[in-house]
Amino acid sequence: MSAEAEFIAALRALATSPAARGLADDAAVLEVGGRRLVLTHDVLAEGVHFLPDDPPGDVAWKLLAVNLSDLAAKGATPLGVLLGYPLGDESWDRAFVEGLGAALAAFGVPLLGGDTVAAPRVLGLTAIGESGGPVPSRGGARPGDALWVSGTIGDSGAGLRALTGGLPGDDFLVARYRRPAPRLEAGRRLAPLVSAMMDVSDGLLIDASRLAEASGVAVAIDLAHLPLSLPCRRAAGDDVPARLAAASAGDDYELLFTAPPERADEVTEIGATLALPLTRIGFCRPGKGLSLTANGEPVPLPARLGWQHGEGA
Amino acid sequence: MSAEAEFIAALRALATSPAARGLADDAAVLEVGGRRLVLTHDVLAEGVHFLPDDPPGDVAWKLLAVNLSDLAAKGATPLGVLLGYPLGDESWDRAFVEGLGAALAAFGVPLLGGDTVAAPRVLGLTAIGESGGPVPSRGGARPGDALWVSGTIGDSGAGLRALTGGLPGDDFLVARYRRPAPRLEAGRRLAPLVSAMMDVSDGLLIDASRLAEASGVAVAIDLAHLPLSLPCRRAAGDDVPARLAAASAGDDYELLFTAPPERADEVTEIGATLALPLTRIGFCRPGKGLSLTANGEPVPLPARLGWQHGEGA
Repeated sequence: MSAEAEFIAALRALATSPAARGLADDAAVLEVGGRRLVLTHDVLAEGVHFLPDDPPGDVAWKLLAVNLSDLAAKGATPLGVLLGYPLGDESWDRAFVEGLGAALAAFGVPLLGGDTVAAPRVLGLTAIGESGGPVPSRGGARPGDALWVSGTIGDSGAGLRALTGGLPGDDFLVARYRRPAPRLEAGRRLAPLVSAMMDVSDGLLIDASRLAEASGVAVAIDLAHLPLSLPCRRAAGDDVPARLAAASAGDDYELLFTAPPERADEVTEIGATLALPLTRIGFCRPGKGLSLTANGEPVPLPARLGWQHGEGA
Repeated sequence: MSAEAEFIAALRALATSPAARGLADDAAVLEVGGRRLVLTHDVLAEGVHFLPDDPPGDVAWKLLAVNLSDLAAKGATPLGVLLGYPLGDESWDRAFVEGLGAALAAFGVPLLGGDTVAAPRVLGLTAIGESGGPVPSRGGARPGDALWVSGTIGDSGAGLRALTGGLPGDDFLVARYRRPAPRLEAGRRLAPLVSAMMDVSDGLLIDASRLAEASGVAVAIDLAHLPLSLPCRRAAGDDVPARLAAASAGDDYELLFTAPPERADEVTEIGATLALPLTRIGFCRPGKGLSLTANGEPVPLPARLGWQHGEGA
């Protein structure tokens, strides 16, 4: 076991409250006064989750969005956020707070509090949400359930490659990397239908394998069904290696969920209402682990399924 | 206005929700299902809030304690915490998680979730508490109210000076610096009685001046009444300069509160029940600002009242 895996395991041993969901879910769920509070805290570090050259306003947006994405995956409505902010460069800080204001307004989320400190640029944010209904976990998928994903996959990874010189520049892809859109409304509408739901933050493949493990099922994904955007296909290609790259790139902040096959029409209806593609990309069966196919042919799992803990989440 | 003060002012402009209390209080207060949730997020940075040589278990303790201290000041019972943790040195991390376990157990608080990232050592923690009764703010003090403080003041500052060579070593003082004790039970019992309450984290003088400002009153403190521990007096002396140093040192995590004079017996009774000194150190009157006396003689305010925002809190 790596030192990082050991650390996480040691933390898990401390997280004995049922509200912690064994630290295996995107968020904690706390019952208060008959309501369900959904709580998450994600950290962004410079050089890990964002580039030193990224516009500060976009970093603010992303910090908020990645946390709200966890609430989205639990179908929760955001109540507010707490910010931990390391003060440093004056003009960066000023642009950050402007961007934060824009992002808070865009999502209609109040800033409730937090703390500032003169320190290296490691940003922490806690988001607090509320749900009046069931709060899906990663662990509820059953054999026979269909596996779905929202939006398109791989745009953000292609955007990062565009910024770092690995692909030609593309505004759409860069915006997907810098300003992800948490699927709050979709999460709220899907929560009562799904058997399991999480957000895709570390890469579709690694997140799907976590869902499989938490649910005690095997998950099969057909790469041919992976929803790829036109800019992504244009920049990075559309063959099996390109699809594997998209599925292990991370930073998508789309929803990954399972539902019994008979709920397919309701799922599709929600996607149509929100003008958000919801795509069936695989299914669950008895067993464990993740397997891939492309047009019926088996595809071996890549060595790296996505971002691992400690690389950042 | 300094760049830091400007940043805080810009954040305040964003924090328009009543739950945010204008970012002027120790914690946010959110009404959920007829209950009051109390939320705080404090950050500790190496070299700012703790020394690189401090034992990691003590840093874990302190991270938890400074956040719980904010809940204590609002009379809230902790429901759980979320941790943002920068992974770095394997043996440091292992000792940290052990110490965190001990601290969580000592305060009976569950770890609910959080995030880990490979990054410089800037620790963030969110504490979530609940209160069934009134949640005192900093802003409720009225002219005529007495000003009280719990425990003793200046121990932690003297402990830090002992660790950095400015004073002779002393285990009690170092422990007060490294392992502060949030006054949770006292906070719960005092919350229904007090007119205003906050914790002393940045220094008694600066925190008292914040309370005065938030309440729109003037606060007068008699330095002769300042409760100093025997080890603190032995190490740092007991004259007016020593008392000013104690009152501006910070990191006390004691409760500072005001109450009408007729509640004095009830306050004293709570102190006796908990075997925690609760000491009347001054009073509020119409006007604004902070004034000091020692045995009836006016004492000019020192240039530095405590830690300012951005130095850390």
